[in-house]
Amino acid sequence: MTETALANLQNLYRIFTIPEAPDSTLGAVDHAISENVADFLQKHIVALERSLEDIEKDFAASKIPEEPSFVSDYAEFVKQKLVAQSVHTAAPGFIGHMTSALPYFMLPLSRIMTALNQNLVKVETSKAFTPMERQVLAMLHHLIYRQDDSFYQQWIHDSQHALGAFCSGGTIANTTALWAARNQLCGPDGDFAGIAKEGLFKALQYLNCNGLAILVSRRAHYSLGKAVDLLGIGRDNLILVDTDDHSRIDMAALRVEYKKLCERNIRPLALIGIAGTTETGHVDPLDDLADFAEEIGCHFHVDAAWGGPTLFSATHRHLLKGIERADSVTIDAHKQLYAPMGAGMVLFKDPHALTAIEHHANYILRHGSKDLGSHTLEGSRPGMAMLVHAGLSIIGRKGYELLIDLGIAKARKFAELIKAHPNFELMTAPELNILTYRYNPAWLQKEMGQLNQQQLQKINPLLDLITQEVQKRQREAGKTFVSRTRLRSSLYHGEQISVFRSVLANPLTTEEILAAVLEEQCAIVKQTEVQNYIEDIKQIVA
Amino acid sequence: MTETALANLQNLYRIFTIPEAPDSTLGAVDHAISENVADFLQKHIVALERSLEDIEKDFAASKIPEEPSFVSDYAEFVKQKLVAQSVHTAAPGFIGHMTSALPYFMLPLSRIMTALNQNLVKVETSKAFTPMERQVLAMLHHLIYRQDDSFYQQWIHDSQHALGAFCSGGTIANTTALWAARNQLCGPDGDFAGIAKEGLFKALQYLNCNGLAILVSRRAHYSLGKAVDLLGIGRDNLILVDTDDHSRIDMAALRVEYKKLCERNIRPLALIGIAGTTETGHVDPLDDLADFAEEIGCHFHVDAAWGGPTLFSATHRHLLKGIERADSVTIDAHKQLYAPMGAGMVLFKDPHALTAIEHHANYILRHGSKDLGSHTLEGSRPGMAMLVHAGLSIIGRKGYELLIDLGIAKARKFAELIKAHPNFELMTAPELNILTYRYNPAWLQKEMGQLNQQQLQKINPLLDLITQEVQKRQREAGKTFVSRTRLRSSLYHGEQISVFRSVLANPLTTEEILAAVLEEQCAIVKQTEVQNYIEDIKQIVA
Repeated sequence: MTETALANLQNLYRIFTIPEAPDSTLGAVDHAISENVADFLQKHIVALERSLEDIEKDFAASKIPEEPSFVSDYAEFVKQKLVAQSVHTAAPGFIGHMTSALPYFMLPLSRIMTALNQNLVKVETSKAFTPMERQVLAMLHHLIYRQDDSFYQQWIHDSQHALGAFCSGGTIANTTALWAARNQLCGPDGDFAGIAKEGLFKALQYLNCNGLAILVSRRAHYSLGKAVDLLGIGRDNLILVDTDDHSRIDMAALRVEYKKLCERNIRPLALIGIAGTTETGHVDPLDDLADFAEEIGCHFHVDAAWGGPTLFSATHRHLLKGIERADSVTIDAHKQLYAPMGAGMVLFKDPHALTAIEHHANYILRHGSKDLGSHTLEGSRPGMAMLVHAGLSIIGRKGYELLIDLGIAKARKFAELIKAHPNFELMTAPELNILTYRYNPAWLQKEMGQLNQQQLQKINPLLDLITQEVQKRQREAGKTFVSRTRLRSSLYHGEQISVFRSVLANPLTTEEILAAVLEEQCAIVKQTEVQNYIEDIKQIVA
Repeated sequence: MTETALANLQNLYRIFTIPEAPDSTLGAVDHAISENVADFLQKHIVALERSLEDIEKDFAASKIPEEPSFVSDYAEFVKQKLVAQSVHTAAPGFIGHMTSALPYFMLPLSRIMTALNQNLVKVETSKAFTPMERQVLAMLHHLIYRQDDSFYQQWIHDSQHALGAFCSGGTIANTTALWAARNQLCGPDGDFAGIAKEGLFKALQYLNCNGLAILVSRRAHYSLGKAVDLLGIGRDNLILVDTDDHSRIDMAALRVEYKKLCERNIRPLALIGIAGTTETGHVDPLDDLADFAEEIGCHFHVDAAWGGPTLFSATHRHLLKGIERADSVTIDAHKQLYAPMGAGMVLFKDPHALTAIEHHANYILRHGSKDLGSHTLEGSRPGMAMLVHAGLSIIGRKGYELLIDLGIAKARKFAELIKAHPNFELMTAPELNILTYRYNPAWLQKEMGQLNQQQLQKINPLLDLITQEVQKRQREAGKTFVSRTRLRSSLYHGEQISVFRSVLANPLTTEEILAAVLEEQCAIVKQTEVQNYIEDIKQIVA
């Protein structure tokens, strides 16, 4: 072996065997995060945004470097180029998306998780993590379905069954639910070996219908579009039902759509209720949907990725009434269970439901094994369930209740602030902890009732431009952040309108911060480029 | 507010704002892991296995606790009930699965990743992480396809295109590849709006065929079965082609299967080559497969989840020749890129390929945005790409080359030890760093050539029981670990035989440890229960 080769080999062993010294760059960063993560993020994430094109220059090389680098050099790079230019999702003024602050204990625990590097697909690489994940699924199952002790004693650790599946996120959870529903509807029967074996084409011949469809309100999360595409059902067969004035599925419209499907001989595979829409946080009338699913005999899924944890609240859980009648429910732990990114779950009422997608292999997932992988869409998976387990244990039902109640109260408070402010217009009031609004100057709000349709159709697009511009500038300034979306507004004859969207989930967000968000938006409106739109509007009104 | 309510609220704020004290239980665990993770794991993971049924008792409660717990109490629980009973995947004697040791720097970096809690679905929650992930995809694309600089300059940060998709693991990667291939084959054309919109039923009518099929060798990873099920193709249409004596796809058998499909008017959607089979680590003749895919005009995918990083090695990369002709390639970073669990990738030769599964939403992934989520199967995702970026930067091409070369050399060494040992039988020699073998006493190996078919059919199942029993006892003893699987062995007329499976990827595994693995197996064979099987065999031979 040459001297260089030997040196390389020694360096290689070193990175696997010798930890970073506490006084090294990476050691220091690590220490700073352990000591006070909020302070670290505050100090190291720069507020003012560089343009993405500018940031891209730091990530322009397309070749893997030939030579190894020192960890310290790389740690410097991470600090200056990655951390500094990341998004301060934990900041209390970041109220635009569903990613918020994490409880402190999540950090050391997630390091334990990484250090253990368990793979939950099979017991041989996860041992205690397997029953732990099954327990988490049972606990969430109980939160939704409230079966008695004997039910859980029977099923919690039963290797042939599963109360749900842990996944990387809500998209896989929703997909898993619909996959199981599809395979259950088209299960083996007589000469037909089932859709899992024979495929969708033969399944439709067997069912003697022209297609499968999924019914859900217009407010459906976009993951459902991906799911129907993946599953071979087709996006045309994701029937988006109109909503009422409160962004909830319109039951009369649902019946009309169902009738249309019957006329086309298309079989409804699943009806989906939303418990906390992504854009406005509304909850569908789940009990009515459960009734209707029962009536037409189809799978009833509830996408509670966001709103599921509302069940913790004695005050608000009634909003989700009917969820306990769902065949399957999606909940994301990286949303309102305050776990780090990458933790979704789907729960099934019936412990036999996941049998429809069961699979085995020779080297793992053998029949009779307790390997979790035989009932999950994904294969190798990290032990994220541990962080959910930690949250449920440390925060407890009452702690989560407090978080939920605080969020909803804060959203209502923010709605009041918006309504009380002359220059803002509340577009959707919060049912849970999400609301939408827009900037609309007081004088214009007064005028709008008197304007004709033609004028309105010119003004709303200009208000949209204001919303878009203000949101962008606010984000770039880096002090506070709201997101934006486009909604059909019942206030304006169902026209699509751009709105600010605010998600109140960070317990550290105060009323003062909410007021500051509005103030900053007003200040941005005063900037020349935005004022130009206001001038354009004035001309239309004049 | 009552006093209790106020106290609860204060506790709640505390977990979001005050870090664990260094002398707390969790602080101490955290510190111990920072100081010396190998030592921590060695001390805290107990070697001797408790039965899973016994461990389940610690995870039996099915209700979420009402009251919050102290972090310190929970940390004690984690130490004693979870860490102690986890699997020491990083131990150098754990040579049974694809999960191995992590370089030290992965731990502090993954804590930074968790602390930042970026969500890579959209730029608004990931900023610099977006170009960083795109760079990682470009680097892996270059490792495989070696396009010139101008190619990468054009595509690396092009918002309308993607060189690949980052995913939670190889299953999602393989599924994404086949999804894109399916949607490309059945894209919009004339009156047909494409399979994404109209679904599989209409797509087959449009293609005027009776089904779609995927061709791959019998050694295919079980994720492909899930993928064809999900995609509506059906497991019957995953055509498992026979392999030659070296576990590689038999090209003549492939042609026969293709002909059969044509006769049934079933359209081959994709041909899949395997670069490192899960069970034996063999590589298909990728150049021949590329030729054949070209000839029949179908998508060519390579599942290089395990073997992809062999491309780092100047000595061994020739084994993967032809991979650069693949339309798509899966690589898992949590395998031979030594990233923590949860990092898969699929790369596409053509930057336009992922357009076939592109999707948008109103609040994110807007047309023209750089949001990564418009081209991924998953939605919200953590910044795992950072850890891959770190590995590529710190270890470098040459470092990974060394890791690959060491692993293959070690596997060959282990094969020699097995062959030199009178009581073991090498079942599949390592092409990369995986091999299979079994215990077969010297006297029996000598006899087996002379035995008749009937005797062999009784003896092999008894040897299978020995393999199963030894593997189980060795795992339970907790000193060393190999896995097991069942293979059709060309040594025994294609009979299915149970074998030990060994994966040599941990750089800290020494020759002494390999010798100790065999010694321990011999010692277990001497135990009465295993000897009983030997006695049974003796009676058959006699």
